[in-house]
Amino acid sequence: MNFKSWSAERAEHFELCAKKALPPDNRLPWKLHEAMRYAVLDGGKRIRPLLAYASGELVSADEAALDHIALALEYIHSYSLVHDDMPCMDNDTLRRGKLTTHRKYGEAMAMLAGDALQAQAFFELTQTKLPGEQIAMLVKLLSAAAGSAGMCGGQAVDLLSVHQKLDLDTLTLMHRMKTGAMIRASALMGLYGGKKMPSAALIGLITQYADAIGLAFQVIDDVLDVTADTAVLGKTAGKDAAEDKPTYVSLLGLEESRRMACCEIDKALEALRAIEALSPDYEGRTERLADIARYILSRDH
Amino acid sequence: MNFKSWSAERAEHFELCAKKALPPDNRLPWKLHEAMRYAVLDGGKRIRPLLAYASGELVSADEAALDHIALALEYIHSYSLVHDDMPCMDNDTLRRGKLTTHRKYGEAMAMLAGDALQAQAFFELTQTKLPGEQIAMLVKLLSAAAGSAGMCGGQAVDLLSVHQKLDLDTLTLMHRMKTGAMIRASALMGLYGGKKMPSAALIGLITQYADAIGLAFQVIDDVLDVTADTAVLGKTAGKDAAEDKPTYVSLLGLEESRRMACCEIDKALEALRAIEALSPDYEGRTERLADIARYILSRDH
Repeated sequence: MNFKSWSAERAEHFELCAKKALPPDNRLPWKLHEAMRYAVLDGGKRIRPLLAYASGELVSADEAALDHIALALEYIHSYSLVHDDMPCMDNDTLRRGKLTTHRKYGEAMAMLAGDALQAQAFFELTQTKLPGEQIAMLVKLLSAAAGSAGMCGGQAVDLLSVHQKLDLDTLTLMHRMKTGAMIRASALMGLYGGKKMPSAALIGLITQYADAIGLAFQVIDDVLDVTADTAVLGKTAGKDAAEDKPTYVSLLGLEESRRMACCEIDKALEALRAIEALSPDYEGRTERLADIARYILSRDH
Repeated sequence: MNFKSWSAERAEHFELCAKKALPPDNRLPWKLHEAMRYAVLDGGKRIRPLLAYASGELVSADEAALDHIALALEYIHSYSLVHDDMPCMDNDTLRRGKLTTHRKYGEAMAMLAGDALQAQAFFELTQTKLPGEQIAMLVKLLSAAAGSAGMCGGQAVDLLSVHQKLDLDTLTLMHRMKTGAMIRASALMGLYGGKKMPSAALIGLITQYADAIGLAFQVIDDVLDVTADTAVLGKTAGKDAAEDKPTYVSLLGLEESRRMACCEIDKALEALRAIEALSPDYEGRTERLADIARYILSRDH
């Protein structure tokens, strides 16, 4: 199966899982559940679930466990978008081509839906049939990636950096926290869906891979903010420049930014080759991860 | 040691643990960490930690594990207050006698601090040295209590009930979710800090105890909103009536509300007597839980 078919099939499978796993909107408090479902369902590239599924393939992870892991990752990602779009943060109207959650359900309900989705993410991890040690490790990885040393921390740095001149190192540190931490967690968490704990060597190489694609992902995001249409992007284009936010493009220019993204993807593919060389168990099993890396470079939204 | 001394000693011990466990405000992003610390430290009755410590005594729980559990509970409680105080929710200026977090750090930072505290709560649970199964169970209890079937769900019902005529059953359902779920989780989670999983009988009786004190806690809260001063309360008094929110006092009157709270505390004490009768292991070990129940009835803030 080529990447396009595989990722479409996975995204569709994920959608079905999410529809079943999210609290139903005919159960009290239905308005909250409706807002939670609105925030998660029907949208997004599902990069984080795809990463978990792809790295899970490496260790022949349990399919049902990967579903729970994928849901947990996407709930965290979705809640962060809901909160990030609110008036006190980015004040955005469009997300994934739809009205943002607070525009549709009001600010209070959007905030609660985000909060409840974060709790639901951790609940989801306890629904796997994995050994307790692996569940504990999954919770540790996800909470560290989502918290003040990861995603929330990166958002705080971002918030404080508007109208500031950031240098490249600080910009990169901010993105490593804001999006990189969750992308790393996505790739790592798939490894804990297997029958046993992953080896230190595998963890190290997957971390290298994930950090490289995470950075490339952000650089391309900045490129698309300048080059893509709002319609294709599904969110408001040109916002970074309008808000005078530091970006890779503003620091490096378009061409150098594209070159930097290519370079990171090369690093990611190198890490995958090293994984294949680690053990015959992994031979031919890094193809999906390589596809995701290449997709990140070529995406148009 | 009497209850006053014990609870003061536990609260002081908790404060030290929290000071050490919360991300330091000299580490990046320091502003976020400062806001997280502000939201948790130096305030509150620490009812949830006290409950975890007290129920932990029943099963001779590991002291360090109880500290992590207590921190996790209070992080969730603190984040919910930060978000609840924001302009899109209750729009409150005072909390625990200090400026609310968004008044001090701005709305965006307050929202992020709340989000990061929720993640930190689950991270904290993974820092215990307990067996993985027990950690997984703790995560399950906390996430269910914090999410849409618990605290967040109750807040959503609350939000939708302003200017509505609620009957007593719906009001009670709302409070069972909004505050009751976390109080139940606090008492239950202490039981998972021991050397082994707690028995079904113990779980059932602690649930009865916690549900009774949770309801009493809320009824007394409504009474205090009418009878106490803002200065003693540490938050704005008289808000419920001003906002036309349904309360026990508005439905039942002051005297009947007080009687209902007493009746719930009796139920709680009855459950504790049943625990003592379960096994000689528990004899004389429910005293702290009984003290907490009596304190809830007699508190003035």
